[in-house]
Amino acid sequence: MNLEIICVGNELLIGKILNTNAQWLSKHATAVGIAVKRVTVVADEVEETASAIREALQRKPQFMITTGGLGPTLDDKTLESIAKALNRKLGVNAKALQMVKEKQEARARERGTGKVELTQPRIKMATIPEKTEPVHNPVGTAPAVRADLNGTILIALPGVPSEMEAIFEETIAPLFEQASGGDAFYEKSIYVDGIMESTLAPLIDIVMQDNPRVYIKSHPKGKEGKPHMEIHFSIKGKEAENPEEKLQKAVVQLSGLIEKSSGKIVSSA
Amino acid sequence: MNLEIICVGNELLIGKILNTNAQWLSKHATAVGIAVKRVTVVADEVEETASAIREALQRKPQFMITTGGLGPTLDDKTLESIAKALNRKLGVNAKALQMVKEKQEARARERGTGKVELTQPRIKMATIPEKTEPVHNPVGTAPAVRADLNGTILIALPGVPSEMEAIFEETIAPLFEQASGGDAFYEKSIYVDGIMESTLAPLIDIVMQDNPRVYIKSHPKGKEGKPHMEIHFSIKGKEAENPEEKLQKAVVQLSGLIEKSSGKIVSSA
Repeated sequence: MNLEIICVGNELLIGKILNTNAQWLSKHATAVGIAVKRVTVVADEVEETASAIREALQRKPQFMITTGGLGPTLDDKTLESIAKALNRKLGVNAKALQMVKEKQEARARERGTGKVELTQPRIKMATIPEKTEPVHNPVGTAPAVRADLNGTILIALPGVPSEMEAIFEETIAPLFEQASGGDAFYEKSIYVDGIMESTLAPLIDIVMQDNPRVYIKSHPKGKEGKPHMEIHFSIKGKEAENPEEKLQKAVVQLSGLIEKSSGKIVSSA
Repeated sequence: MNLEIICVGNELLIGKILNTNAQWLSKHATAVGIAVKRVTVVADEVEETASAIREALQRKPQFMITTGGLGPTLDDKTLESIAKALNRKLGVNAKALQMVKEKQEARARERGTGKVELTQPRIKMATIPEKTEPVHNPVGTAPAVRADLNGTILIALPGVPSEMEAIFEETIAPLFEQASGGDAFYEKSIYVDGIMESTLAPLIDIVMQDNPRVYIKSHPKGKEGKPHMEIHFSIKGKEAENPEEKLQKAVVQLSGLIEKSSGKIVSSA
């Protein structure tokens, strides 16, 4: 069960902002047993985004999530890009329009102002590719959009983090949990002083061979000459398979080997 | 002149860390006039990384940078992936081996220990694809690697941020500056209260049409119902073309239109 994430936004490609959406989605998908296979960041351009979507579909992930580009401005082009990638027409969707209208009416009531005008930018947020479904946005105006394709469920989420996270939690997390059949992700880190990455490498190799389901990766943290290393252990599995026990076995084995090589375990988390 | 960035690392795909390398590289490439066209994040797997490199090469960017996977451990597979993508053999490179050896010797001198052993993990860092060049790493042991391909310069950088940044500044920034011919990137943001993104959209459209070289994008920051918006203006160009003046003209025009629509400019940066 895997997922590709496509983040749309020039602000990412000029380095204006950190891609916190990709990290948030990766973390939350991983936690419920869905592996993120690739993250792609593209510009707010229809041809760029459509190509990235087409290429990802050829890799046949079970899930694809796009973030960004659902808003009312002219540079919000993700739905146009999806339509192009799928070779479908864009049209005003009655259910989506109703969602936009209800949000605007609620807002008008809050402000105590009068009736809501469905301006062109508001209608744009309800203009989605044919044969796709709008998905409720608990926070903002623009609905998310879901397309069930040939073996891939594609969901377009807004780029505003609070909206993206709320839709994920309401709609996508349950879908992922069901798809992964109760898999979960377990991880643990130990922090080690006084051992070089090149000395550590063969020890990790031994422990990964003895514990084939545990993935171990070292992350050098100190300056060279003063080696400080994070060693990250992870495993995916169902609770009944005792994944935490399997993880702990690998941690204990590697810790022992490190201490024999005069490395020092300074902490764990 | 454009750049594709490929970040290699499972830690990114499980959401363990934020992709600060992609942001840093994007910001610094943009600043010297090189446009980042795409960022791709893949796992520490040879087939995954090789595919991403092959696909990027087909899009013919002038530059491609990979980050991560140059270290001594078994899951550092970027050079093997590049060799596979280019259909080249891997071999110990004499110049790269000399670089690794010199680093280790300097380190041994610092620690006052004896002679340096070229262990297998150390030799691995000097094992690079044929017809590529090792690039000096001012901070760490693993050399970066440069391949001049058919119209694309590919550079493999380490994933440790301090090493990646030092190699970029020493070797890549001058290359980019020369390639862009003195282009630079100018940006400005204004922060606006009291205007909905859907009201703002047509105003931005007018100003972008009147100022075709300026790119304007709105970023909703507040909660819906309490609109607070960042509006980001950017332009790329040579100093002689007065890009800052062109940028300021667009800022002034849009600010005026926003105030006429009863929005309020609260600050600028």
